[in-house]
Amino acid sequence: MRRDEAEALDGADPLARFVDAFVVADPHLIYFDGNSLGRLPRRTVAALEQVLVDGWGGELVRGWSSWIDLPVEVGDLIGSTLLGAAPGQVVACDSTTVNLYKLAAAALDARPGRGVIVTDEANFPTDRYVMAGLAAARGVHVRLLPTDPMTGPTAAEVHAVANGDAALITFSQVDYRSGAIADVAAITRAAHDAGALVLWDLSHAAGSVPVELDRWGVDLAVGCSYKFLNGGPGAPAWLYVAGALQDSLVPPVWGWFGQADQFAMGPAYRPAAGVRRWLAGTPSVLGLVAVREGVTMLAEAGMDAVRAKGMALTGLAAELSARWLEPLGVRSGSPPAAERRGSHLALRHPEAYRLSVALAAEADVVPDFRAPDVLRVGLAPLSTRFTEVWDGFDRLRRLLEQEAWRRYDPVPTRVT
Amino acid sequence: MRRDEAEALDGADPLARFVDAFVVADPHLIYFDGNSLGRLPRRTVAALEQVLVDGWGGELVRGWSSWIDLPVEVGDLIGSTLLGAAPGQVVACDSTTVNLYKLAAAALDARPGRGVIVTDEANFPTDRYVMAGLAAARGVHVRLLPTDPMTGPTAAEVHAVANGDAALITFSQVDYRSGAIADVAAITRAAHDAGALVLWDLSHAAGSVPVELDRWGVDLAVGCSYKFLNGGPGAPAWLYVAGALQDSLVPPVWGWFGQADQFAMGPAYRPAAGVRRWLAGTPSVLGLVAVREGVTMLAEAGMDAVRAKGMALTGLAAELSARWLEPLGVRSGSPPAAERRGSHLALRHPEAYRLSVALAAEADVVPDFRAPDVLRVGLAPLSTRFTEVWDGFDRLRRLLEQEAWRRYDPVPTRVT
Repeated sequence: MRRDEAEALDGADPLARFVDAFVVADPHLIYFDGNSLGRLPRRTVAALEQVLVDGWGGELVRGWSSWIDLPVEVGDLIGSTLLGAAPGQVVACDSTTVNLYKLAAAALDARPGRGVIVTDEANFPTDRYVMAGLAAARGVHVRLLPTDPMTGPTAAEVHAVANGDAALITFSQVDYRSGAIADVAAITRAAHDAGALVLWDLSHAAGSVPVELDRWGVDLAVGCSYKFLNGGPGAPAWLYVAGALQDSLVPPVWGWFGQADQFAMGPAYRPAAGVRRWLAGTPSVLGLVAVREGVTMLAEAGMDAVRAKGMALTGLAAELSARWLEPLGVRSGSPPAAERRGSHLALRHPEAYRLSVALAAEADVVPDFRAPDVLRVGLAPLSTRFTEVWDGFDRLRRLLEQEAWRRYDPVPTRVT
Repeated sequence: MRRDEAEALDGADPLARFVDAFVVADPHLIYFDGNSLGRLPRRTVAALEQVLVDGWGGELVRGWSSWIDLPVEVGDLIGSTLLGAAPGQVVACDSTTVNLYKLAAAALDARPGRGVIVTDEANFPTDRYVMAGLAAARGVHVRLLPTDPMTGPTAAEVHAVANGDAALITFSQVDYRSGAIADVAAITRAAHDAGALVLWDLSHAAGSVPVELDRWGVDLAVGCSYKFLNGGPGAPAWLYVAGALQDSLVPPVWGWFGQADQFAMGPAYRPAAGVRRWLAGTPSVLGLVAVREGVTMLAEAGMDAVRAKGMALTGLAAELSARWLEPLGVRSGSPPAAERRGSHLALRHPEAYRLSVALAAEADVVPDFRAPDVLRVGLAPLSTRFTEVWDGFDRLRRLLEQEAWRRYDPVPTRVT
C-alpha cells in the first residue's frame, strides 16, 4: 500500500476542511490520542477569549444571567447532536466520575431490596471503582462479568446473570481498550427484563459511533467531553436521565444549582423539575463554553459523516497493521469489522509500553499505552488525515524493524 | 465626609497597584460584588492563553505529565497562602457542593452510631441542602441552630446542643449575608469536646479574613475559588483534610484520580495516600490554572495587608452608610466592628431587591441582593478603591433620596 492511496482518501474526504479547523502547533507530529484528549479547535480559542474578557472581565457577575442556562443548553446540544436524545434530558456538569456516582446512587435508591450491581471486568477503572464504593457503602454486591473485550458485554450474558436481585446494570458502549461496541439496545432490553435500571458510559462512544438513547430506551447515561467532543483537559462531563424517570429519581447530592428556586435560598431543598436537579454546585463557565464549541463542530460535520470517516480511518489503520506490523509481532486487539468498533484501535505487543515511549521520543508519534500490552491508536475523525495514519504506521513499522523499544526502560513501577 | 478623604485613603493604600492588575472594561462601573464573582486578573488572561494554546494545543495529551499534579500544587498554594495549612492537606477539585458532600459523608462514616449533624439556619443554602440530603439517605437528623446572623454560631451554642449524638458540626466561618465571623477555634474545640468532627465552609472567608486551620485544630474544610480567590465563574473549589485524619477517612466517591496507582487501572480501588484520594474524576486544567493565578496575587499582596485593607474598606462603607443611608431607611445587617466581619457588608432595606435593580439600571453600580431584604456590598480588597466605595454609596444615597426603586417591579415570584 503506497502513500498516494492515503493521499487519495484525503482528497476525497468530505470532512477534510475540519482538519484545518484545529490548532496544529507541530505539523510533523502524528497525534494518535484524540480519543484521550481531543485537539484544540481554533474556534474554541476565540470563544474562550470572548467569555473570558467580555464575559468574566466585562459582564462580571451579571454574566450569570445567561451562564446559568449553559449546563442545560450545552446538554441539549450534546443530546441532539450525539446521543439521539430529545431536549431536557441531558445536562453538562461535574466529572464523569461524579456523574456516575450521582446516577448510580439514585438508581440503587429506586430499586430497594435488590442487592446487585452488574458490570464487567473490562469496564473503565473509574466506573468499576465508583460501583465498588457504592456497593461497599450500601452492603450490595458488584457482579463483574468476565466479558470478552473483543466483543464487549452481550445481552445473553446479562440474561444469564441478571435476575430479580439486580438493581443496576452498567457498561461502556465502546470498550476503552479494544474499541468493541456493545449492543446497547439489546442489553438495555435484557436489563429491563430483569427489572433493573441501566446506566451507560458513553465516554468513548459519543462523537464517535451512533447513539440513540431515546430509541433504545436507555434509562441513564454519562460521558466525558474531552475526547471526541474536544472540550479540553478536564472539561465538564454530561449526564442523561430519560424523561420518564426524571420525577422519580432524586440525586444524592442536594446542591443549590439543583434546587427548584435557587435564589430564594429557602430553608428546604426541593429538587428542580426535569434534568436540572442533577446539577450540584456552580458549573464551570469556561469549560462549558469550550464544550459548546467542540460539539458545534460535530453538529456541523454531521454524525453520519463523522462515523463514516471514523470507520474509514480505523479501516486503513487495521489494513496497515495487518500488512506491516503483524509480521513484526503486533496482534490486533480490536474487532476486525469497522462497524463493530469505535474510532480507535488496539495494537497488542508484549513491549507496548516501551514502544509507546520510543514512538514519542524518536518518531514524533503520540499514541496511548494501556496496561498491560496495548498500544492504543485513537483516530479522531474531525482532526485526523488518512496520510497521518499512513505516516504514523510507517514510523511505527520502522521502529519495530529496528527493535527501537530495546533502548527504553521497561514499565516503571509507579508508587503514588 | 468628602470625596477627597477617600482619595487620600487610596493615595496611602499599599495595595493600590493591585487594582490595576485586573481587567476593567468599564471604568464608570462600581463593582460591589467581588465576593460573588471576583474580577478577572490580567495575568489570568495571559496564563489561560498559554495553557490553552501551548498546553492543550501544543502539548496535547502530553500536558498531563505536569497537569496531573495541579490539584495538589494549587491546593498547597491555597493552603499556605490563605488557610494556615501545611502542605499535603488541601486539594483543588470539583465544586464546593460536591466537596461538602464528600467530606460530610466520610465524617458520618467515621462516627457510626451518632445520629446528628449540627449546623445553623443562616448557613449557606447548598451547605444546608447537602447535609439534609445526607441525613435523609442515612436516617440521621440535622439540628439547625437558630443562630443570630449578626454574631454567627458560637461555642456556647455548640456546647449546649452537641453531646454524644453529634457526628458532625458544620458552619461557615463568614456568614454569607451578614459577614459575621465565627470563632472557628472555640467552636472546633466545642465540637471536639462533644466527640464530633467539624467541617468549615470558608467560601466567604478564604482570601478575606485570617484563617489558621492547622493551629485551630480544624478537621475538615471546603471553600470556593471564584470569590476572593479570583478563579473565575465556576472555578474548581478546594477541600482540606487535616493530616492526622487522612488515613482514616475514605471518600464516598471512589474515582480513578483518587486511586493509589491510577494508570495501572487495576481491578480494585485502593485510595491514594494523603489528600490526593479526595480527587474523583478528571480535574479542570483551565480552571486550576486560573485559580493558581488568582491565589498567586493574594500571596504577593500578603494576607495581613489584604485583611487590613478589607477592614478599612468595610469601615469606610459602614461609616458612609451610617451618615448617609440610615437616615434614608437603611439598617446595618453586619457586625459593627470591622474585625468581627469579613470583606462584605449587609445593608438592610425593605425594598432591597428593587434597590439592587435600580442601582444596576440607573447608576452603574453592581451590588448583590440576598433574600429577603439584604443589599450586599462586597468589597474585594485587591480590586476595590476607597473612592469606588465613596462613589457607590453616593450613587446609592441619591437613588434612595429619589425613591428610585419605586420605578421597578417587586421581587418576581420565580417558578423553576
